[in-house]
Amino acid sequence: MPTNSCQEEDLLTRLELAKDWIRDAGNFLKENLTEPLEITEKTRYDDLVTNFDHEVQKMIVKNILHHFPSDKILAEEDNKKLSFDEQIPHLWILDPIDGTTNFIVQKDNFAIMIAYYEFGVGKFGLILNVTQDKLYWCDSHKAFCNQRELEPKFSPLRHSLLGVNSYMYRANVGGVLDLSRQTLGVRILGSAGISYGQLLEGKILGYFSNLQPWDYAAGSIIAEKLGYITLTLSGEKPKFDDREKVFTIPKMLLPEIQKYIKN
Amino acid sequence: MPTNSCQEEDLLTRLELAKDWIRDAGNFLKENLTEPLEITEKTRYDDLVTNFDHEVQKMIVKNILHHFPSDKILAEEDNKKLSFDEQIPHLWILDPIDGTTNFIVQKDNFAIMIAYYEFGVGKFGLILNVTQDKLYWCDSHKAFCNQRELEPKFSPLRHSLLGVNSYMYRANVGGVLDLSRQTLGVRILGSAGISYGQLLEGKILGYFSNLQPWDYAAGSIIAEKLGYITLTLSGEKPKFDDREKVFTIPKMLLPEIQKYIKN
Repeated sequence: MPTNSCQEEDLLTRLELAKDWIRDAGNFLKENLTEPLEITEKTRYDDLVTNFDHEVQKMIVKNILHHFPSDKILAEEDNKKLSFDEQIPHLWILDPIDGTTNFIVQKDNFAIMIAYYEFGVGKFGLILNVTQDKLYWCDSHKAFCNQRELEPKFSPLRHSLLGVNSYMYRANVGGVLDLSRQTLGVRILGSAGISYGQLLEGKILGYFSNLQPWDYAAGSIIAEKLGYITLTLSGEKPKFDDREKVFTIPKMLLPEIQKYIKN
Repeated sequence: MPTNSCQEEDLLTRLELAKDWIRDAGNFLKENLTEPLEITEKTRYDDLVTNFDHEVQKMIVKNILHHFPSDKILAEEDNKKLSFDEQIPHLWILDPIDGTTNFIVQKDNFAIMIAYYEFGVGKFGLILNVTQDKLYWCDSHKAFCNQRELEPKFSPLRHSLLGVNSYMYRANVGGVLDLSRQTLGVRILGSAGISYGQLLEGKILGYFSNLQPWDYAAGSIIAEKLGYITLTLSGEKPKFDDREKVFTIPKMLLPEIQKYIKN
């Protein structure tokens, strides 16, 4: 099957390049962690962006287009955003700094995320926990944290923790508070990328938040390799066109969890 | 002043010993992180203790009594607990594993904490973030993370994050939710020790939770060196005799924060 192996090779090339780009971007942020920031409010006082979000996005976009000039890119900090479309042969989804508030306040607990799609199908994802030097990624079959292959670690709800969005938790949006009462409790980390990292390592059983496509793209692709599923509160696949309330949980626990989750 | 310098020397001896003990205990936990656990419920299904909590407590208590046979110890996993008393010349307060749920579920994000009091006055504290190898400690004057001297980093509420207890946050106990609305948001980490670590590094501005003395003893002593104050919701010093709702915040922000905090 020369065509298939050729496609597979093309995918591996892209994956290896993306690993280099994300590591370079992470090193750039680490080297500049003590530099003064230019901070701008986007939609409101707690929705912030810095010059480094723009800088990292520029670096990675430049790398993608240098190697693959006709690829399409959906990136958080573009003013006019590309629409997700299943007709696009090569689509990258990019979050240059996920957890910008943590980046600004903590200089810690933020991530860079890259996902790659062909005709609407997620092919691989990468999440770099910058300060902990942890790169979560997958190829077509397996998921890894740096060189370590990840394995599914699903415990019963009663012996597990959930990663949640603070508002959904306290206002019981979608039944998240009800569900949390079946568990050992919740963790609120302020970054989808950092939360997906905990999920992939089995430190939280599920993650519930109100997310944009670049927040869940990489995490959902990697998590799928371990048997997780990513859905909206109404039980559908996310539409990748705007902010949606989504969750990622072990697929085998979907019937049990859906007893508590409502739209 | 030969007496004073003698007291100071005695304190430094104890501090250096305590650093060794806590590091040894941390290494013991790290070496056994993949061992199977014996888990027991204490008061309810989500209040857990493991054989390693008991093991670490035994190790540290043995060390204290070996060097200082007449010192008193208030430790989390004692069935019959010593009362905190300002008449006690040498009192150690010990939490062998803080964040036991994280220890069990995550094998991460837990701490060992030791505090030392003379006649009711906190002399030094130590918090070891075990998996991150970060030892927070203080002498009589200054606070450190490993060898790095810590410096106060107080931002206005509007540019800060809070560490909170999940129930106090969602039920607005003590006005914690009201206060959080003046900030960039909350973080819920599931361990007082890990939260105090973030506070000492300036990653959260304040910490609000429902704590036992061994949860806040070390953190409050170290934080005091940086200008923080630890109070109950009613604005009093914690009594060290049972679980209380306490907070640690920069002392200079007390008047502003107390506008939102109520008992």
